[in-house]
Formats: sequence, structure tokens, C-alpha cells
Amino acid sequence: MGKIFYSLKSVGPFLKKQKPSSVYLVTSKPLAKKLRWAIREIGIERQNIILIPNGEIAKEWEQLEKLLTTFRDLNVDRGSVVIALGGGTVGDLTGFTASIYLRGIRYIQIPTTLLAQVDSAHGGKTGIDFCGYKNQIGSTYDPIAVVLDPRFLKSLEKKQIVDGLGEILKAGLIKDPSILSLLAKERVDTLVQSKRLPTIIRKTIHVKNWYTGKDQKEKGIRQVLNFGHTIGHALELTRHLSHGRAVIAGMLEELRITESMEYTNPSVRQNLMKLLHSLGITVDSSLRFNKKVLRSDKKIFGRMLNLPVVEREGKSRIIRVPVESL
Amino acid sequence: MGKIFYSLKSVGPFLKKQKPSSVYLVTSKPLAKKLRWAIREIGIERQNIILIPNGEIAKEWEQLEKLLTTFRDLNVDRGSVVIALGGGTVGDLTGFTASIYLRGIRYIQIPTTLLAQVDSAHGGKTGIDFCGYKNQIGSTYDPIAVVLDPRFLKSLEKKQIVDGLGEILKAGLIKDPSILSLLAKERVDTLVQSKRLPTIIRKTIHVKNWYTGKDQKEKGIRQVLNFGHTIGHALELTRHLSHGRAVIAGMLEELRITESMEYTNPSVRQNLMKLLHSLGITVDSSLRFNKKVLRSDKKIFGRMLNLPVVEREGKSRIIRVPVESL
Repeated sequence: MGKIFYSLKSVGPFLKKQKPSSVYLVTSKPLAKKLRWAIREIGIERQNIILIPNGEIAKEWEQLEKLLTTFRDLNVDRGSVVIALGGGTVGDLTGFTASIYLRGIRYIQIPTTLLAQVDSAHGGKTGIDFCGYKNQIGSTYDPIAVVLDPRFLKSLEKKQIVDGLGEILKAGLIKDPSILSLLAKERVDTLVQSKRLPTIIRKTIHVKNWYTGKDQKEKGIRQVLNFGHTIGHALELTRHLSHGRAVIAGMLEELRITESMEYTNPSVRQNLMKLLHSLGITVDSSLRFNKKVLRSDKKIFGRMLNLPVVEREGKSRIIRVPVESL
Repeated sequence: MGKIFYSLKSVGPFLKKQKPSSVYLVTSKPLAKKLRWAIREIGIERQNIILIPNGEIAKEWEQLEKLLTTFRDLNVDRGSVVIALGGGTVGDLTGFTASIYLRGIRYIQIPTTLLAQVDSAHGGKTGIDFCGYKNQIGSTYDPIAVVLDPRFLKSLEKKQIVDGLGEILKAGLIKDPSILSLLAKERVDTLVQSKRLPTIIRKTIHVKNWYTGKDQKEKGIRQVLNFGHTIGHALELTRHLSHGRAVIAGMLEELRITESMEYTNPSVRQNLMKLLHSLGITVDSSLRFNKKVLRSDKKIFGRMLNLPVVEREGKSRIIRVPVESL
């Protein structure tokens, strides 16, 4: 696992110690403009900036080929360091490209969204889409550093805050209920100004890194991180929900199912609904999942499903159930 | 590191224990025909065979996209196992594809050439060519098993034996001189019939696996495996030599250079030339390397070069020299 820094000011001195043969920064065109101050602070010259498309289109196969070609044209070598500045899509494409170029060169994640800061930038998962399937192609490849600067969060839209909140709520539910207590004092609209946010972010990362640590990976406990995502992904695809709303609806729906199987205390779902209300997040209660979509989800082994179960806040495990039983 | 088996008969029982959701075998069209007996022995049905082009063309970018699409079309999933049956190119493309499909699925290497049996199937290096550069894109991803069956070697051409011999000689020179003693009793033309060949192969693999083990990887000692390859690759590209002849010429040339730097005992090169003569391998003594080509070699950090040095048979290390000093 790479280092975690909590300010852009750490990047310069850290890079110096790495003695790179060259440093390139990958970002999207709108971000390069909006985050000129950050690029200056990191110390990257204009000619060392590589631009990729904005949004999910950056994760298409053609973009992978294009970025690899750019690396080749710029003579990126084994001594080079590549920096990903942006949200999850920038990090996913850049991380994956870095992981396979010359069988892997060093890279740094500088996530600029709440979702990327608490989730996608950690754990080393990289990936692109393929044949219409999300993250069909990818690798597990750790960055040498993840840099979380709170200044990036100030200008986020509400949708982007909710995207991050999905993962933050998940971390609270599966492992660390103190995250839920901290959130109980917040509202979505004012979260980025809250002095509690840095603590919430650190605690959430701590949960994710605990699960992605070596032991948990081998024992398969890591799959608990999929809580809310099995059904969430299905909803994201079929209902075109944002990631955050899909995960939140997915968690509620998975809780409802495991509640009916008597694995989950009914209070968990009730408390979650109360918390969502106090945060100011409304959830469409008509969201139900479609079994057929599940079959195309890559987390399914044959017809058995590894389903994360939250028994009560902070206590979770994996059960193995046939898809049919849902 | 995966398991090593020395007979195809082990594949069936091993596969059974893996409980795969599906098994696919990747090979080239001519090999599928020639090795029908082997495919039957492994127990793969016709509809589970995936054909890729023969030779280095299999390592082109388009072939990667094609194989990934085939995996997707066949619904290869996280529970599937993919088998690579063939030489280095089949293993490289299949291994790389397996390493990035769904962020990595299980695969088995069944190398059918001497070079692949002693070298490319071990150590987990996978890769494809890009923009005209060899192995520019790839990963380090271990197969769950490598299966070495001596029957594959019976029908190899002399060129293919020499390809493997390059790596076998290298293993003897950098770490295990007993390999050289065993080879002293052989001739290229009769090597595949020799009862000493299985021992020679095992010893060579042992050397490679020692170097690719975790400790050696971290300390950078692994780079000794590049002995003969820095100049060898350059010769392969510019003089269109086969891999085996290029590595052999590369080793002789690198020995000549480190001899002049007084790192290497002159007896090493003399003994190697005697051994090549007794094996029946002639080397064009006019082969000299071209500095310019070195600059495009991916093993170069800036202008310093990590050069493996054989001090005497079985004793080697890495020195760091400026490219200019060569």
C-alpha cells in the first residue's frame, strides 16, 4: 500500500525523494483549467500535462490505446512517475495504464472528488470498460501515494457529495458505527464545510484499507466491501441512477432482503432511513432490483452469490446464497 | 508462484480440484492440429478451444482486443480457468489477457517449446508488443500451474532447441555451473533424446525461480537474469537473429566488455566458446552491438545501465555503468 498524504504540499518533497526520470500528470481538459492552482502547486509544467476526455468516456478501450501511445511517444520509461489528477475515471484509466505500461511504472493518485478520496483511489483497483461492461478489464496495482486535499471538495456538486456519502455510509454500516454518529450531525448541503469531514474521510479510508489488507483479501472477507453494490450496480445500470444513489438504494434493498432472511436486525434499516432523512437525502422507495441483471454482474460465481450481510451496525460478514433465494 | 507439474496427466486431477466454472484452452491453429493428442489428454472439448494466430503476430494489440472480446462472448467469468498451450507467444498473450480480464482470472501455462519450458512460462511475466516495441505492455501475474511435458520437445527444430539453450547456458553461467558440466556431454542435434535433459531443465527453472523469488526481486538481484539480453535484444532487433543466437552472441559480447573492465575472468568466455563448439553451435564472431539501439531498450534508467556481470561461472552480480562506458 502506498503512502497517504493530506495536502498537495507533500507532493513536491515526496516526488523529489523518488528520483523520477520524468513526471507526467494526467487529467481531463476541464479539470486542467479549473485546477490550474493545484497543478502549479504540484510543480508540473504545461508540456508535462496529458489530457484525456472528461467522464466515463475516458474508460473506453480506445482511450487506453491512446494513453499508452502517448506514454510511448513521450518516452515514459521505467524511472518515470505518472500522476492522476481527477475523479475515479481519471484514476482508473491512468492507474490501469501505469500498471501495464512496461509491466508497471510508478503512479500517484490525487483524487478530486469525495467518492475518489474515500474509495476509488484506495485499494489499488484500476479498470476500464469493455463491450459495454463496466470495469471488465483492469488490474490491482497500488499507487506509490494517494494525496487527499480538502480544497478539491469545496466546489463539488450535491450529486458528487452523495456519491461519496454512499461509500462513507457503507463503511459505517459494515465496520465503524462512529462514522454514522458523526454523520448524524451533518447535512449534505453543508458537509464540505464541516470540520468533522476530515475525520469522517480518514475513518472511511481506514475501513477500506483494513479490508483490502493482505489477510482479509486471502480470507475473502474483503467481499464485505461489496455491501450495497450487488443490487446497487444493477440499479445503476437499469435505472441510470448516480453511483451514490444506487449504492444507498442497494444497501436499503440488501438490508430488506437479509432482514427477511433473519440475518439482519430490522433496526439497521430503520436507523439508516432516519440518518438519510436527517442528512437531507431522499430515496425513491419504489426501487426494487431485477434478478436478470444480476446474472451479468461479475461478482457472481455460477449460480451462487457471495452476499455481504450487515447483522447490526459495525458487524458484518459474507453469506453464500443461491441467486434464486433473493 | 504456481505449481510445477512434469506431465500432462497431472492437469486433469489438478483442474478438478480448482472447481472451475468453465475451462478454455488457447492455442494456435497449427498447434491445435499437431497437438490433438495433448488436448485430448488434458480433456478439453472442441468448443472450448480458442484459436489465436501463430507466431509473434499473436502479440499485437489487435489480438489482445480480439481475445478479450472472445472471453466476453464466451462468458468467461471469475470462476473460469484458461489454459495456454503453446510457445512463448501463446503464453504471453494468454497470460496477459487472463491477468487483466475481470482484474485477473486463473490460468495455466503448458509450454510446448524448450525456451518456454525453461524460461518464459516461469516468473509470471506476460506481455504484448506495442508501437513496434517488444513486450512494451504487460503484467507480472503468476499462473496457478506450469505443466512441462517432455513429449512436446521431441518434434522441435534445431533453431527452437538453440532458443532454449541460450537461457539454459545463461542459468549455468550466472548461478549453477553444474548445468554447464551436464551440457558438456551433449550435442544440439541429440539433446531432446538425452536422459540428462529433464535434469538440465529442472536446474534451469530452479535458477530462474530463485531469482524471481520475492527477496531477490526487491533487492534488484533479479536483474542478473538479463545477462546476455541487453546486447542480445539489440542484436535480435538489428540483425534479425533468433532469440537463442541473439542471447548467446549477447552473452559473449557482454563477457568481452566486462572482461575489458576487469570484472570477468577471461576463462569464462573461453570456456563458453569451447562449450558452444562441443555442442555444435557456431556463432558469427563479427556480431558487435550498436550503442544507439540500446537507448530504446526498456531496461535503461536514463543514461545509467544496470549491467549483469558474470565474474566466474556461477558467480554474478549487477554493476551500474553509464551507457557511454560500454
